[in-house]
Amino acid sequence: MKRPLVFSLDLELPEPTEDDKRADLERVADALGADSLVPTISALRTLPDILRKKGFRISPVFSIHYDSTRLIEASTGSCFALAVDIGTTNIVFELVNMKDPGPSLRFQFKNPQIKYGEDLLSRIQHCMQGGLKELRDSIIAGLNEEIKRAVRQAGISTKEIYAAVFSANTVMSHLLLGLDVSHIPVSPYIPVVSRALFFTTSEVELDIHPDATVYVFPNAGSYVGGDIISGILATGLHRKESPQVLIDVGTNAEIVIGTKDWILVGAGAAGPALEGGILSSGTVAKEGAIYRIEIDGSGDVKYKTIGDSSPLGICGSGVIDLVAELYRVGFIDQRGRFTESAPTVKIDGEKTFVVAKNEKVVIGINEREIENFLRSKAAMFTSLYVLTQSLGIGFNDIERFYIAGALGSGVNLKNAQLLGMLPRLPEDRFQPIGNSSLMGAGMLLRDASLLDEIAYIHSIITYREMNTDNEFMKEFPSARFIPHTNPERLG
Amino acid sequence: MKRPLVFSLDLELPEPTEDDKRADLERVADALGADSLVPTISALRTLPDILRKKGFRISPVFSIHYDSTRLIEASTGSCFALAVDIGTTNIVFELVNMKDPGPSLRFQFKNPQIKYGEDLLSRIQHCMQGGLKELRDSIIAGLNEEIKRAVRQAGISTKEIYAAVFSANTVMSHLLLGLDVSHIPVSPYIPVVSRALFFTTSEVELDIHPDATVYVFPNAGSYVGGDIISGILATGLHRKESPQVLIDVGTNAEIVIGTKDWILVGAGAAGPALEGGILSSGTVAKEGAIYRIEIDGSGDVKYKTIGDSSPLGICGSGVIDLVAELYRVGFIDQRGRFTESAPTVKIDGEKTFVVAKNEKVVIGINEREIENFLRSKAAMFTSLYVLTQSLGIGFNDIERFYIAGALGSGVNLKNAQLLGMLPRLPEDRFQPIGNSSLMGAGMLLRDASLLDEIAYIHSIITYREMNTDNEFMKEFPSARFIPHTNPERLG
Repeated sequence: MKRPLVFSLDLELPEPTEDDKRADLERVADALGADSLVPTISALRTLPDILRKKGFRISPVFSIHYDSTRLIEASTGSCFALAVDIGTTNIVFELVNMKDPGPSLRFQFKNPQIKYGEDLLSRIQHCMQGGLKELRDSIIAGLNEEIKRAVRQAGISTKEIYAAVFSANTVMSHLLLGLDVSHIPVSPYIPVVSRALFFTTSEVELDIHPDATVYVFPNAGSYVGGDIISGILATGLHRKESPQVLIDVGTNAEIVIGTKDWILVGAGAAGPALEGGILSSGTVAKEGAIYRIEIDGSGDVKYKTIGDSSPLGICGSGVIDLVAELYRVGFIDQRGRFTESAPTVKIDGEKTFVVAKNEKVVIGINEREIENFLRSKAAMFTSLYVLTQSLGIGFNDIERFYIAGALGSGVNLKNAQLLGMLPRLPEDRFQPIGNSSLMGAGMLLRDASLLDEIAYIHSIITYREMNTDNEFMKEFPSARFIPHTNPERLG
Repeated sequence: MKRPLVFSLDLELPEPTEDDKRADLERVADALGADSLVPTISALRTLPDILRKKGFRISPVFSIHYDSTRLIEASTGSCFALAVDIGTTNIVFELVNMKDPGPSLRFQFKNPQIKYGEDLLSRIQHCMQGGLKELRDSIIAGLNEEIKRAVRQAGISTKEIYAAVFSANTVMSHLLLGLDVSHIPVSPYIPVVSRALFFTTSEVELDIHPDATVYVFPNAGSYVGGDIISGILATGLHRKESPQVLIDVGTNAEIVIGTKDWILVGAGAAGPALEGGILSSGTVAKEGAIYRIEIDGSGDVKYKTIGDSSPLGICGSGVIDLVAELYRVGFIDQRGRFTESAPTVKIDGEKTFVVAKNEKVVIGINEREIENFLRSKAAMFTSLYVLTQSLGIGFNDIERFYIAGALGSGVNLKNAQLLGMLPRLPEDRFQPIGNSSLMGAGMLLRDASLLDEIAYIHSIITYREMNTDNEFMKEFPSARFIPHTNPERLG
């Protein structure tokens, strides 16, 4: 029977008689059909009274906790849970009504650790200087604040949240739990823990139900986090006969190739540019972000913003459009340098192509930023190419490309292919899946049997470091050109 | 491999290399050979630093927790645990050095709940009037105070205690956990929980290591507590081909008959008199307790006290001697009435035989007390007889009688047989085993595989209520005589 990670069941229990002297808890356990029912002490304390006041018709809350089922509360009217994706830059979560399979409320906020460092390495350094508790406290405080906002919006109380599932990269998972990350950036790159972990609220200090179950996805080493494993779960590639690819671009870019029998992950720093992160005009995909750009030969620019709002900056898909259009109309060359015909202006001493301008901001891109973008796209493409080659297969052997993260929603495939970011394959091979890490977390909430699939994925993953890979080194320079100096590589 | 419930292992772990990038915890789990290793968050937080400071040679503390192994502490120098028997009247515990198989320190103190009622029923009534928290707080406070005393004596700290095993009757177990006992004395007598429970320190609020494992023995209903199950474990009768008997006399008297295939428990209120509890001169077996008595025809009394101290009162074995001697020399008749030749004095208007007298106390027994004693011995013997008969076996079919509790240490078998308390069988059939409940708890601490045996015992126990049993009613009156009006019943 498919059971969620946390659930409430309406039980009608037989009342005790001379012939049925089972204890209260045993009555519940038998109805549940769970041998390994582990009650919290507070559930045990309230159970007898609630049972009798409700005439032995109760709706207890249970959660899966490792191999056991926990009894969290003797009876409830509601049952909510959180699926959380902790990114280095952004934290996104869903408040899931476990009693209602409909769509969930989604919330997003900046990772409050950013004030201690934008990237993973600077946060790790902050930890090594004694800042671990600070980093942990900041993320817990941020989560608790946003959870409070979320429950207000949903009209519920924090006590009605009985579980939280966290998917994050290895460093973020460690920082969430207050674990030492100082050995992660130093060879041989050892995390404190890899396995999936269950905790209770008190251990993690979240302001949800005091006995809620907290699950943290396992990692497959310092560079293959729970977010990747959750993303793989979301795609289902670990159940497929023929090779599938998952490309997840967040603050880092990760490439996964796998089937039901093997999964290979390659990772290397590649992301921020693709996420709009290293443009001074960059932004995440939020209201006011420019996500579509068209340029004509005269230099006129048309763009669309999210929410049709006044433009604030350019998000990942906007950057791809921008660079592709600049190339298409001949304003930049193969190396990303502005041509003589490009209508640029100087801003802070750098030739800049302006996309939009209002009283508040000038939104544009300069050569250095284009170069960074091309470096990122080269890293991503080269990782994909090298991994595929190392498996002795070609792009054409790959049944499906799942495009997640910043590239997942709204990316113009034709433009990405024009730039040499993605292989030249028919459009139906590509499937955007948005935030695959969050999706996997939400799936686990709704089906605890996925714990076994997660363990399976965890067991077959192998990792290939791209940044120090010889093949990667050899291929990378050619991929920095638009589309590539060896276009046959593009498939 | 035989593993204790809590243990520290000296591990020499391979250091991480480029070819061995296992996470710190996985390294420990692999060395332990435990798939289901569940770390506490604080152990995870200290592990990386301790591992590296100690050159990957650590002595972590693990405990068994349901089907998992918990990592409680990354490294320790010592590992202690508590085996606790919570009696209605007395609490006895051992402080066990898990790194040293030698004898353990033993401590005993009055159950502090006594101030809310001497017997179970009055404590349950106190709970029903809102006193549950008070009762729980009093036992927890008492335990914490005595644990403090114990660690001082042992020269250790409370933080070095990583586990506690509790064996107690069903009401005491419930009160320890703060569980509602109000449905226990009312038909159909339903406890909150029957299964064995594991908790952590924080849930039970004991002042030991904050992540220690707390285990509470299961019960087999309101009238067959964890103390009986622990006692059965201690005798090993659940592994024997031929029937064995366990007689445990505490504040209540319980009779267990069983083999490896079935276990029958009969219980009824019978105990206090046998424990020295209802004599005004009664005492538990402590320094100054009279435990041996001889009387000659002239009325001269010789006695021995524990520790050869000045006499304070008479303990259980002393009472048996006293009544038997009074009968042997003809000072009481078959019904327990003083004969004319008995040298009695009047105390508070009642004929009393004086055993000892000093400036502080007069120690003796009167007819009402003898009657109570004979009622207790009759209840005990009749339970034994009726249970045996109901199984279609005779006393001679019983291979061994384990005598536990107040009767266990120092009872004069000949005198007990003379009074008709125990069957007339050769001495080698009887084996005193002291506090079998405490013994079982200590055994479990030392061997976690006994969890399976406890579950097995739990699964095959059946209970027969004696106080309302027709056969018992019919047999009981004749057993109130010395030795019995049907002496052939004595075997």
